Amino acid sequence: MSDLDPGQPWLEALKWDEQGMIPAIAQDAGSGRVLMFAFMNRQSLQETVNSGSAVYWSRSRQRLWRKGEESGHAQRVRSIRTDCDGDVLLLSIDQQGGIACHTGRESCFFHQLHGGLWVAVDPVLKDPKDIYGK
Amino acid sequence: MSDLDPGQPWLEALKWDEQGMIPAIAQDAGSGRVLMFAFMNRQSLQETVNSGSAVYWSRSRQRLWRKGEESGHAQRVRSIRTDCDGDVLLLSIDQQGGIACHTGRESCFFHQLHGGLWVAVDPVLKDPKDIYGK
Repeated sequence: MSDLDPGQPWLEALKWDEQGMIPAIAQDAGSGRVLMFAFMNRQSLQETVNSGSAVYWSRSRQRLWRKGEESGHAQRVRSIRTDCDGDVLLLSIDQQGGIACHTGRESCFFHQLHGGLWVAVDPVLKDPKDIYGK
Repeated sequence: MSDLDPGQPWLEALKWDEQGMIPAIAQDAGSGRVLMFAFMNRQSLQETVNSGSAVYWSRSRQRLWRKGEESGHAQRVRSIRTDCDGDVLLLSIDQQGGIACHTGRESCFFHQLHGGLWVAVDPVLKDPKDIYGK
């Protein structure tokens, strides 16, 4: 956390949860599609602002997750908003490769409720094997 | 919870947190704007599906929150999606009155980060006093 200035008012104005996390929604600046939902801690948000590319906190891996570090599908950040409560972030981004989801789809929100079933309604644009290698 | 069938696979396919909640993003079907972020429990999601209008769980008031019950700014639900993890919902909605935020703005996401400050960048469309009465 050495590169993080704890005295930054914009950072401390946000409501961080008891784990020091804030949820973040990534929306494609071009298509308007909501692409994914993830978490940030202070360090990842600070790095996002500094670098201009989305950096999340991977709760499963317990480390910074520089989006695209393995897939190449980085997210250039155009703007960052927060809501009236300051407890969630909305990132307007340009999605490199047009694929945000690890399944090879544009958006992680590809299951739609139809007649009491979750149906995968979006196409796989690229085989995950070709994204992540073997 | 009497109107809730616990055996509904689509409901149990979702990942509910330890408080029985799932986050929900509401996106305007017309403009594509992300309007708000709130939580649902099983009962509120079931009622949302049954009624076609968004029902959230108010964590502050600890009760069902039928969006628009006080403001008139109800949300008609066009579709419900979940993400690849099944732990967040995305609602495509028609926002009655064109106002989702209790501040009288279209979207709750009206603060944008500019030069290290959160700046309110969207106009108030209606005085909250005129929305909620005195």
